Amino acid sequence: MATLTLDEIYQLAYQSLRQAGADDANAAAVATTVTHAERDGSASHGLFRIPGYLKSLLSGKVNGNADPQPEHITPVVIRCHGNNGYAPLALQRAIPALAEAAKTYGIAALTLTHSHHFAALWPEVEALAEHDLMGFSCVSYKPVVAPAGGNEALFGTNPIAFAWPRPGRSPLVYDMATAAMAQGEVQIAARDGHSVPLGTGLGPDGELTTDPQDILKGVLLPFGGHKGSAIAMMVELMAGPLVGESLSFETDERDTPDGGPPQGGQFLLAVSPQVMGETDWAARAEGLFSRLEAMEGVRLPGQRRHTLRKDTGSRAVNDSLLADIRQLAPQV
Amino acid sequence: MATLTLDEIYQLAYQSLRQAGADDANAAAVATTVTHAERDGSASHGLFRIPGYLKSLLSGKVNGNADPQPEHITPVVIRCHGNNGYAPLALQRAIPALAEAAKTYGIAALTLTHSHHFAALWPEVEALAEHDLMGFSCVSYKPVVAPAGGNEALFGTNPIAFAWPRPGRSPLVYDMATAAMAQGEVQIAARDGHSVPLGTGLGPDGELTTDPQDILKGVLLPFGGHKGSAIAMMVELMAGPLVGESLSFETDERDTPDGGPPQGGQFLLAVSPQVMGETDWAARAEGLFSRLEAMEGVRLPGQRRHTLRKDTGSRAVNDSLLADIRQLAPQV
Repeated sequence: MATLTLDEIYQLAYQSLRQAGADDANAAAVATTVTHAERDGSASHGLFRIPGYLKSLLSGKVNGNADPQPEHITPVVIRCHGNNGYAPLALQRAIPALAEAAKTYGIAALTLTHSHHFAALWPEVEALAEHDLMGFSCVSYKPVVAPAGGNEALFGTNPIAFAWPRPGRSPLVYDMATAAMAQGEVQIAARDGHSVPLGTGLGPDGELTTDPQDILKGVLLPFGGHKGSAIAMMVELMAGPLVGESLSFETDERDTPDGGPPQGGQFLLAVSPQVMGETDWAARAEGLFSRLEAMEGVRLPGQRRHTLRKDTGSRAVNDSLLADIRQLAPQV
Repeated sequence: MATLTLDEIYQLAYQSLRQAGADDANAAAVATTVTHAERDGSASHGLFRIPGYLKSLLSGKVNGNADPQPEHITPVVIRCHGNNGYAPLALQRAIPALAEAAKTYGIAALTLTHSHHFAALWPEVEALAEHDLMGFSCVSYKPVVAPAGGNEALFGTNPIAFAWPRPGRSPLVYDMATAAMAQGEVQIAARDGHSVPLGTGLGPDGELTTDPQDILKGVLLPFGGHKGSAIAMMVELMAGPLVGESLSFETDERDTPDGGPPQGGQFLLAVSPQVMGETDWAARAEGLFSRLEAMEGVRLPGQRRHTLRKDTGSRAVNDSLLADIRQLAPQV
């Protein structure tokens, strides 16, 4: 493992993206997202994603000079056409307008279309919570998850993210796949020879298995059986038809499989407890959190990320990952 | 079992509520909700609830003459103070305004407070879908579910309901507890001597058990482990602090335990795919549904209810339930 400071991580991401064809604004937005993931201990959304970003620039699938312009469809619905670029710049430009609308009207939504999302979802909902808003977001992807009861992939891993503001403190944030396990985790278990819990997925024979190798040849399952499957389906609808974008299977059909992110949609919701609820909304929610924290065995979601964030020192980065990045961006 | 026509079911519900002190508007709204549940095969939300409704009127906990008046806080946020009555009349009055706002602005929310919810959630989201809107709603209750990792009840069964409009067809609708199993189902399993799946709940010793008797002395668990628990927590926040109402544990603290529904909050969200998405939103969603329906072993949520609804004939009703109702409302 190599050791890189957060600034070195940012520079590596930024410079390699620039070299592969992204302009300053897009490279900076993606590099910031990647650096924040490394900072918060989410290696799977950090530099690990850079090779995919670079490949999708080099193949011409993604527009590295995208100039997304958010527009109000109504006072409370903002649409951002991603201009075939990456999501981070579009989100950076659109979230202030979303937050402003939600603070004024109590509720607002942002639809991001024609965009390539390849990052964690928590940054955007956390940004909303920093405006004292409740945030919710979801994206679909390409089919890797079978609906409960079935054995054919139809849903993406379809993550949802949720954030609740805690004035004066780090917000409560979670971001989770509606698949039983994220695909990257199954890949890591397969690489390391570990088994996975029964219910994670089906082998190529359509039967439950604890062998991650078999699941990679078969299909993942939603978390939580039929109920989780119903939520994965809701994500398909919200990130697809609701916002005028594709379902996971349609995304797959039009994708250039270059290792980078496909084009799809994203739905974001911002709600103001200040406008909608009563004045004691924050204190009331803290009453729930303190009861949760007092319970043995229970953790508030997102706490680990905020703890790791306090460490401003270096991060360990996989050597072969660095080699992969330098192969794709030789002058970095 | 007795056999009652849907009209007899309505009259039994309406007259018993009237006799226990509800006025015409409230009795009619509750009786309609109860009759629709019986019609759709959801006995646990049908006449089965009437004894609890009657007890809460007779104890004076619920205001049977509530006159809820929805008001716009902003053009897209409607608040309805329930006036300490049952939810159905408040919802009946507020949903048209919610639908109108969502159709005009693309997204809108309704907060229902100081209300007693004792019915299924699907009627309100289905009503939104009939306006060609996507609907989402949730309520909390009293603590019966432990957060994942814990063994003390903190969350209610905290159902969420979701509906997607299908122009020209019955909407897609689901309504599910975020508990692994609804409490009524555990009670029925205990009564009938059946075991329940491991993961449904913990016994009084805090250990997993398949014995529903033990779970009723212990605590239910959320569906889907930590992920389901995160969703149950989201419901606590949405139906509580977000709308200016109590968390499940606060609801319990102020409740009069008379067998009827406690006072709490409800959050409803309505979103227009017509405003937000593109013109082909309906056809695109049908593409997903037809793929789901074509998969062996997969069912679209809500289909069973809509099939049962087509039968306009009589429904079987438990004799001892009828006796209970007639004991509480002797002149019926």
